[in-house]
Amino acid sequence: MPPVLLREPQAFRHVCDEARASGQRVGVVPTMGALHDGHLALVRDAKRRASFVVVTIFVNPTQFGPNEDLARYPRDLPGDLAKLTDADTVFAPEAGAMYPAGDETRVRVGALAEPLCGAFRPGHFEGVATVVTKIFGLTGPCVAVFGEKDYQQLAIIRRVVTDLFLPVEVVGYPIFREADGLAMSSRNAYLTPEERTRALALSRGLGEAARRFDVGERDARALREVILGQVRPAATSIDYVDVVHPDSLVPWRDGEKVGDHALAAIACRVGTTRLIDNRLLGNAV
Amino acid sequence: MPPVLLREPQAFRHVCDEARASGQRVGVVPTMGALHDGHLALVRDAKRRASFVVVTIFVNPTQFGPNEDLARYPRDLPGDLAKLTDADTVFAPEAGAMYPAGDETRVRVGALAEPLCGAFRPGHFEGVATVVTKIFGLTGPCVAVFGEKDYQQLAIIRRVVTDLFLPVEVVGYPIFREADGLAMSSRNAYLTPEERTRALALSRGLGEAARRFDVGERDARALREVILGQVRPAATSIDYVDVVHPDSLVPWRDGEKVGDHALAAIACRVGTTRLIDNRLLGNAV
Repeated sequence: MPPVLLREPQAFRHVCDEARASGQRVGVVPTMGALHDGHLALVRDAKRRASFVVVTIFVNPTQFGPNEDLARYPRDLPGDLAKLTDADTVFAPEAGAMYPAGDETRVRVGALAEPLCGAFRPGHFEGVATVVTKIFGLTGPCVAVFGEKDYQQLAIIRRVVTDLFLPVEVVGYPIFREADGLAMSSRNAYLTPEERTRALALSRGLGEAARRFDVGERDARALREVILGQVRPAATSIDYVDVVHPDSLVPWRDGEKVGDHALAAIACRVGTTRLIDNRLLGNAV
Repeated sequence: MPPVLLREPQAFRHVCDEARASGQRVGVVPTMGALHDGHLALVRDAKRRASFVVVTIFVNPTQFGPNEDLARYPRDLPGDLAKLTDADTVFAPEAGAMYPAGDETRVRVGALAEPLCGAFRPGHFEGVATVVTKIFGLTGPCVAVFGEKDYQQLAIIRRVVTDLFLPVEVVGYPIFREADGLAMSSRNAYLTPEERTRALALSRGLGEAARRFDVGERDARALREVILGQVRPAATSIDYVDVVHPDSLVPWRDGEKVGDHALAAIACRVGTTRLIDNRLLGNAV
């Protein structure tokens, strides 16, 4: 049975309030739709942790820069609904409902939003932090599940929840990959078959770095070069290939020795499609 | 009987959770302590609206500028507790408990924080919005009561609650005045007897403006001059005397005709003490 679809914030709040009032434990999986198996794994995980699971589908305009892909971001609400058999309710508001006239409050984080994608997408994480805080305000969830593919996003949401004392448990779910290693992403739909093949360089580079790390490589530059060896020939352009502290996200620079827990992270374009991927090195976090 | 005093955020959260779980309606009155009769009126109002009333006492460092009175702001926790017979719980955390190491999330509003005090206290309202959001996160209140003396603060908190969909009703309570008209403020304790007399110019100027407004005066400059006629000779320095839209807080400028609902607002120093006061003109808001 497809889940109940709600488009109005106050109607959605009411449904969540009723669920809580009837003793349900509410879980939420915030998404931008164009759902793939990775999203569905998050929903199944949420269903294990909560009795009443809501999925939000909202292509959040404030997290897109002026030259990014807001307009062409894939949207398929009927297809998404058909996949969400494990959800109890789907909330898919219009942009104007989440940012009505007069809206001007923003939630921002500091240092965590500066490295990695933050350096290339100014305002992106402020948009993310703001919309997730709004969704939490409406939903009042006990638990929220996010994918680890957006590792920096997850770290920032944990930070916001801790700092604002929001009463929600934030759960990170491991990256869901295609059989050949490509991290699932709604943006994979942009890739041509040839680009799809080239995009395997990301997971291959990360896998190679993990192997080198496991046999003792700790030189930051060497680890980055292992990844770049794969990514450079495949990518149209590279935003970053970094090895960072898994909590602070501060990169280790050339000449530095990385710690025993590290995160290797990539953002690059294959064709015009921006892809990200990451992998924890060591038994990290 | 004095209320229960809690200093640790998680212990405070637990008490609020228990109260809600037992069916209580939780109300909160956030304060910076040094309580006067105005604060106690807020607490009584909260008690009419909620069965379990918590008062927070926290001199919030992030809303003070580097040259402001954070260090000398009056503090009297034992005296405050003795006055809070109507409260069920008092939460008085240390600064480090509200802003522990690593804290970096801030809540900011845009246009509403720009005029009036926002123009003279950069960062002040970001500090206010942040700490109130934290207090709401910990308390999970149904209702929160704030004084209208801090009119811009109240407008900004309403904005944050609306924009972030926080599930709390925000109530503004009318300014509580001494018999001679002086708006009650913890900072009145700074005034010498001679300054205390001069400080009456604020309420006198606002009263005179209200009378002129009621008999039809709508010229923004004329209304400001009526107030300035009282405040200029009394104040050591003036931050602003403005007539603003009561919702947007946008000032009417010289030569403009004010609408039928307006707010007259003052910030000035009497001696070294910064005082604010305001008054709605017409049956405003």
